[in-house]
Amino acid sequence: MRFLRVGPSGAERPALLGSDGTTAYDLSGITPDIDGRFLGRLLDGGAAELAALAEQGGLPVLETAGQRIGAPVARPPKVVCVGLNYRDHAAETGAELPAEPVLFMKASSTVVGPDDEVLVPRRSEKTDYEVELAIVIGRTARYLDAPEDADAVIAGYALSNDVSEREFQIERGGTWDKGKSCETFNPLGPWLVTPDEIADVQRLGLRTTVNGELRQQGSTADMIFSVRHVVWYISQFMVLEPGDVINTGTPAGVAMGRPDKPYLRPGDVMELSIDGLGTMRQTLGKA
Amino acid sequence: MRFLRVGPSGAERPALLGSDGTTAYDLSGITPDIDGRFLGRLLDGGAAELAALAEQGGLPVLETAGQRIGAPVARPPKVVCVGLNYRDHAAETGAELPAEPVLFMKASSTVVGPDDEVLVPRRSEKTDYEVELAIVIGRTARYLDAPEDADAVIAGYALSNDVSEREFQIERGGTWDKGKSCETFNPLGPWLVTPDEIADVQRLGLRTTVNGELRQQGSTADMIFSVRHVVWYISQFMVLEPGDVINTGTPAGVAMGRPDKPYLRPGDVMELSIDGLGTMRQTLGKA
Repeated sequence: MRFLRVGPSGAERPALLGSDGTTAYDLSGITPDIDGRFLGRLLDGGAAELAALAEQGGLPVLETAGQRIGAPVARPPKVVCVGLNYRDHAAETGAELPAEPVLFMKASSTVVGPDDEVLVPRRSEKTDYEVELAIVIGRTARYLDAPEDADAVIAGYALSNDVSEREFQIERGGTWDKGKSCETFNPLGPWLVTPDEIADVQRLGLRTTVNGELRQQGSTADMIFSVRHVVWYISQFMVLEPGDVINTGTPAGVAMGRPDKPYLRPGDVMELSIDGLGTMRQTLGKA
Repeated sequence: MRFLRVGPSGAERPALLGSDGTTAYDLSGITPDIDGRFLGRLLDGGAAELAALAEQGGLPVLETAGQRIGAPVARPPKVVCVGLNYRDHAAETGAELPAEPVLFMKASSTVVGPDDEVLVPRRSEKTDYEVELAIVIGRTARYLDAPEDADAVIAGYALSNDVSEREFQIERGGTWDKGKSCETFNPLGPWLVTPDEIADVQRLGLRTTVNGELRQQGSTADMIFSVRHVVWYISQFMVLEPGDVINTGTPAGVAMGRPDKPYLRPGDVMELSIDGLGTMRQTLGKA
């Protein structure tokens, strides 16, 4: 199933995308939102019920024409990110391959809709894009025994843009978080896609264009640490909760890694996509 | 005013502490919780109204005997932390004095009550304490013009323990966040104290004992970056929201900085206090 949230920021309606890929069905009679509680219910048998209901025509159509698409999950309790998780991206940044996952965090207030404006922060010279596969958690994960146990806690996947300010991240002292949590820095969506819809999550193409020029083109096959490994690993250091989002790292091609350092400027247009997870498009504005 | 939350975890009742320092008044008729929304109302004139109501005897007494005290604010949207913000602590860790504030983040799921059990994580050898002054935000702060503007967005202060696992933080690759977000790693409370109750927030004594032995004893006068500076600074990199918590750094005396490295073990008892902000006491357990 593919879920989405439709409507103005802060007042989105939860919806299910029909199998035609365009009709949306209103879920507000079933859940107030696509949030941790709903995702937990999905994993606990609710998915089958919902599928049956949809098939019987028991869900009202939600008009989406001209409407904003929000992030496909309500504001996450937390956003955990994995750094340097693609071999080619680690190489372009001059970093050694990490021996274990590199973690950092993004303020969850950064999460916006897939086509919302992204703001270049004030005094920023080095705003950058990062196309990423996001994992959305559906069940509490605490000290998972093995990577295989991750399957039971993953509610789905989404396309994510881990927007980053490289000067704030690297040249201003302290941890990376300073360049990762600026306003609007985490477009997410358009959909939350359940794992059954994806044949092999470790074989998905990802790409980014800026103003129509191809900048990133990679595959989740190049991840150093797999989706399962990452979820298992994080659960050893913190409790993952329903609704949490994990950004799993980006392939090569970010502005920081290119010879001409083509950082983002107001007016630029980013278009990102991942196979099976849809496409997002953001215009850059000014904070 | 001093606010607190009384009752089992997840079902705390909001309360106002009487001027006698022991009687608590139930605020559940006025607000569902001590959260960002309530704190915003307080700053927008609600504080005076509430004080008048309390004086007129218009608030019911809340029985606190034998009851758990929770964190004095509902789960924060985010917890931002300042590292190496005391001259003596920077020295003991061997770090240079930072030229600008060092920032990192803690998962807000780590926030627990002031006297709740703190869990030594599995496979941890280096769990450590950090007594800190926490700032609680009451109004949205975005690109504040000057440090002086911080006063308008600060709802109050609280005593905080920024529990840290040093191996996870420093020796496992990536940012500090890995050693800062373990379950139960942010005891907070007992009170949220409004700024008017504190004569000079930059002249408060802080201390920690472990098993009765004095480990940290400092003063907020030794902060490298003041409370106002820190709030102003963070607002240049991310949007601060009502209910957010900022841990402002710890003075010298942490286990990592002592010759005998007396890291925390299950059964140890920490007692922390800050002048005017109360005392907290946590026993260490095992995750």
